[in-house]
Amino acid sequence: MTTEFVSVPAATTVEDALERVRALARSGRREAMYAIYATDADGRLAGVLSLRELLAAAPGAKISDIAWTEIVSLGPNADREEVARLTSNYDLVAIPVVSESGHLMGVITVDDVIDVIQEEQTEDVQKLGGMEALDEPYMQISFWRMIRKRAGWLCALFIGEMFTATALGYFQGTIDRATVLALFLPLIISSGGNSGSQGTSLMIRSLALQEVGIRDWWRVAVRELPAGLTLGVILGVIGLVRIELWQLLHDHSIHIFGVPLGMNYNQHPGISIEAHLVALTVGLALVGVVTFGTMVGSMLPFLFRRIGFDPASASAPFVATLVDVTGLVIYFTVALVVLHGVVL
Amino acid sequence: MTTEFVSVPAATTVEDALERVRALARSGRREAMYAIYATDADGRLAGVLSLRELLAAAPGAKISDIAWTEIVSLGPNADREEVARLTSNYDLVAIPVVSESGHLMGVITVDDVIDVIQEEQTEDVQKLGGMEALDEPYMQISFWRMIRKRAGWLCALFIGEMFTATALGYFQGTIDRATVLALFLPLIISSGGNSGSQGTSLMIRSLALQEVGIRDWWRVAVRELPAGLTLGVILGVIGLVRIELWQLLHDHSIHIFGVPLGMNYNQHPGISIEAHLVALTVGLALVGVVTFGTMVGSMLPFLFRRIGFDPASASAPFVATLVDVTGLVIYFTVALVVLHGVVL
Repeated sequence: MTTEFVSVPAATTVEDALERVRALARSGRREAMYAIYATDADGRLAGVLSLRELLAAAPGAKISDIAWTEIVSLGPNADREEVARLTSNYDLVAIPVVSESGHLMGVITVDDVIDVIQEEQTEDVQKLGGMEALDEPYMQISFWRMIRKRAGWLCALFIGEMFTATALGYFQGTIDRATVLALFLPLIISSGGNSGSQGTSLMIRSLALQEVGIRDWWRVAVRELPAGLTLGVILGVIGLVRIELWQLLHDHSIHIFGVPLGMNYNQHPGISIEAHLVALTVGLALVGVVTFGTMVGSMLPFLFRRIGFDPASASAPFVATLVDVTGLVIYFTVALVVLHGVVL
Repeated sequence: MTTEFVSVPAATTVEDALERVRALARSGRREAMYAIYATDADGRLAGVLSLRELLAAAPGAKISDIAWTEIVSLGPNADREEVARLTSNYDLVAIPVVSESGHLMGVITVDDVIDVIQEEQTEDVQKLGGMEALDEPYMQISFWRMIRKRAGWLCALFIGEMFTATALGYFQGTIDRATVLALFLPLIISSGGNSGSQGTSLMIRSLALQEVGIRDWWRVAVRELPAGLTLGVILGVIGLVRIELWQLLHDHSIHIFGVPLGMNYNQHPGISIEAHLVALTVGLALVGVVTFGTMVGSMLPFLFRRIGFDPASASAPFVATLVDVTGLVIYFTVALVVLHGVVL
């Protein structure tokens, strides 16, 4: 914000105001001149006009005759995102900052706004990447300051992810009896993380641009639930086909350049249905995990905004960590149901 | 870009130019007036001055006397990031677009620039989330168009992640003999993904802001290698301590509210060293996986820029998928070395 702006009493004539502007321009001072502000008898902001409008005005007029009285302004505590949004929505080159009593405190000019938007974006991208914002250019920040900014979130995510080890502990007996299930574990939980990452990125940006507000969470939920299901079914079908195909390639001993293709998922002798059931387990688990991931990813930015956190902190790694634990519980639960009585 | 701008021959006097500006302002047309452009005898752009400078000029002067001849301008094919960067770096409110022959084609004003920056950022955040940019507001895009934008990348990542199943197939014998290794699989590969996500976010933003150029890749590599190692050692120590601690809690049958704490990682009777070796395996694997993830994450945006892709497409999910396959190979390789002759 600059406190060097041009304000004139509303009763000033256009000639006097223009003379004032020219004198200021000649003085070599740094006043922002995109807009001229008119003040009432008590010194409160009463109108605004652009330099262009001042130049165009008929010589006899008063400022109060030509100034706009509907003023887009900011309070002294406005945050950076609001500044960016107002500038963008109203195509403004300068926004006045007005105190609670209505007095003009300063002006935010558009070149500041661009810097603000760029900084805000840098912060958001770094938070989205699962770290604290650096607040300094990468090449300038000291090595240990950078490590601190990165290690905090990395350790928090690591500790959160430890619950996967705990959860897997409960399913260790299941893995013992059907090691084949472990093969698809990374595939399934990462799909939940990826779909969650899409949901969170969409909502972080929609919230920042005020395309959606916090009260729209249910309208988003109503869109994301079928979206998650659809994406889950797509991945589920691909996963199922992949397993059936590999089994088929193995069963027919297909080789390419002497290398055997496919893989045998019928690992328990005498149970020829095993591969089909594994394929079904993976397919169904994917529907559940992707739907769940999509919902968590899209709802988390709303929750964060609601409890006063920056929605951008609902980073892709954060969502992935949340979804991983649930994802493996979904996977093994589906496995226990589908494979029950056959290999489990 | 607007083609409605104010240009005057360089030989015009200040009075005539100001009269021209006032006449244009009165005409009610929409010319951008932040800057006045001076043209030479051939109509080429020869100088620029702000409206403020025109107002401040001594009445007798010519435009050529006061205009700046060092002009920051854009070619007709400049991309959006360049527009944003120039505006931000030079605090400009308008940038002239100049043809190859040096003629002024139009002017990009700052309100357009802000819209451009906002759109660019929305695209970047959506790409970073592992999807195509929507190009429409979330609430307006049709359901099936949105699904297409999301399903493409989600399927690509899923197919990439399938290599984890193939890679795990090679280590299935190892898992059979030491199921305990499967427990830490998600923890270890997700740590690689998370550290990669940090690296890629940092570099995507540094490249966009031109804090680093493509030629600086090795300067970044020289910073990221020790950063990755440091972060890897931090996580490795936490992981090792976690396993030793859980084993200790189990060995001493510590209960809280009747619930047994800890876990037994000595799963092969008679081998009391097993838990220590598992802890060592996890610790060492984390150092390797985090270092590798950090390097891949930070180098990928450079590679993408080099081959003409948008660095923002090196999304967190993309990096995670790349790192997952390598991560599990690193993990099981370390396991085979450390546990060799004991349980493997």
